[in-house]
Amino acid sequence: MALRLLDEAAASPAQAVRDADLVVFATPVGSMPDLLGQLAGAIGPTTILTDLGSTKSDVIAAARQALGPAFARFVPAHPIAGGEQPGVDNADPDLFQGCTVVIAAQAQTRDDALERVEALWRVCGAGIVRMQADEHDRILASVSHLPHVLAFALVAQIAGQPDAQRKLSLAGPGFRDFTRIAAGSPEMWRDIALANRAALGQELRSYVAMLEDVEQALARGDARWLEQLFDLASRTRRNAGGGARG
Amino acid sequence: MALRLLDEAAASPAQAVRDADLVVFATPVGSMPDLLGQLAGAIGPTTILTDLGSTKSDVIAAARQALGPAFARFVPAHPIAGGEQPGVDNADPDLFQGCTVVIAAQAQTRDDALERVEALWRVCGAGIVRMQADEHDRILASVSHLPHVLAFALVAQIAGQPDAQRKLSLAGPGFRDFTRIAAGSPEMWRDIALANRAALGQELRSYVAMLEDVEQALARGDARWLEQLFDLASRTRRNAGGGARG
Repeated sequence: MALRLLDEAAASPAQAVRDADLVVFATPVGSMPDLLGQLAGAIGPTTILTDLGSTKSDVIAAARQALGPAFARFVPAHPIAGGEQPGVDNADPDLFQGCTVVIAAQAQTRDDALERVEALWRVCGAGIVRMQADEHDRILASVSHLPHVLAFALVAQIAGQPDAQRKLSLAGPGFRDFTRIAAGSPEMWRDIALANRAALGQELRSYVAMLEDVEQALARGDARWLEQLFDLASRTRRNAGGGARG
Repeated sequence: MALRLLDEAAASPAQAVRDADLVVFATPVGSMPDLLGQLAGAIGPTTILTDLGSTKSDVIAAARQALGPAFARFVPAHPIAGGEQPGVDNADPDLFQGCTVVIAAQAQTRDDALERVEALWRVCGAGIVRMQADEHDRILASVSHLPHVLAFALVAQIAGQPDAQRKLSLAGPGFRDFTRIAAGSPEMWRDIALANRAALGQELRSYVAMLEDVEQALARGDARWLEQLFDLASRTRRNAGGGARG
């Protein structure tokens, strides 16, 4: 309590959720099935449930299985926000300001639960996008899960080399931008990668095929092919905004 | 002259370098052979020459061939700095403050030229690292050229898909960090990739092999393997510093 962050602590998750109006599941997605199972019996008859998981199909399946009729009060959500710095020391009151929250409501999801959770996000400054869970997972595999895996793989590869320290000492601001997400939580990203392994695996295979094309263009010295690829990326990235560092 | 940035302009590069104390080659590396050839005859007998190229072996070979005896006054250099935003509007007077400049002096390089160029960089706030050109090119292939190619390839792949706009609209801050370098100059990076194609190709092949290992770990659901990889990367990246956004 030294940081005065908690109003109330509980001896167990089951004790914590008793009498709660709203329970927010904010753990790595791999631990949600267990946690949902532990809590299912303790949740009150009007409590609304939601989550912050980066994958949705797996969390929804776990909630459906664990919650029984209370599944109608579970609102699957994913705020697309957050940095690689973990822990309470890196908390940011404006974290969700201007971010997008994907809500993957199910046929059973009650309107009042949905409205309550969406209102919560609007109060935090977020915009809502409603989407099917499988579309969410496919899109996030492409623009989030794959980039994280790529950054982890690059840094791990360099770390495994005998001249790693020398290499890292000569890395510039571009490398630091590119690998910032590789400082993220290994446990959290392990869970995300496995939870979304079908979509992520497909993105990874397409990307490897792209890299093999790049390799061949390099080998044959194909300046035009490389410039076209880089130019498409550069124009797309500039139009996508957020280009300035910081 | 509206921006009052130029003290003097010249009708041709050859005219510009006449009577210069110091000439700095700051073009994409692919255009340096031609430019060096055009200027070789116009350079005065005491003029010192240097460059800012991101690859060194190719620039050194071109300078050696073009400059004749003046090659002893050419100091190959690479400041590891710069952003993806091109042009004079994005100029930054502190760009080189605290950055590292690699100097790849040759056996013929005169001490007075070397000292003059190193002094120039120290005045700009940079630290000097002397290194062989081939070591520079091998290290930069790993920590700069490969990451740029990876970022270009990812953004180009997304851009080529029918739901590109929807995907980009759901990309979060991690994606923006990871792909910031993909906004860089296509021409500059085409030249770098080709100039350093041997070292870059080797890095690319190792990296593809690593991604294939990741793909297999995903396919067999190997949580432990994935967590170990991500953990090595995360610890390395945090220790490497520059972790905070901005």
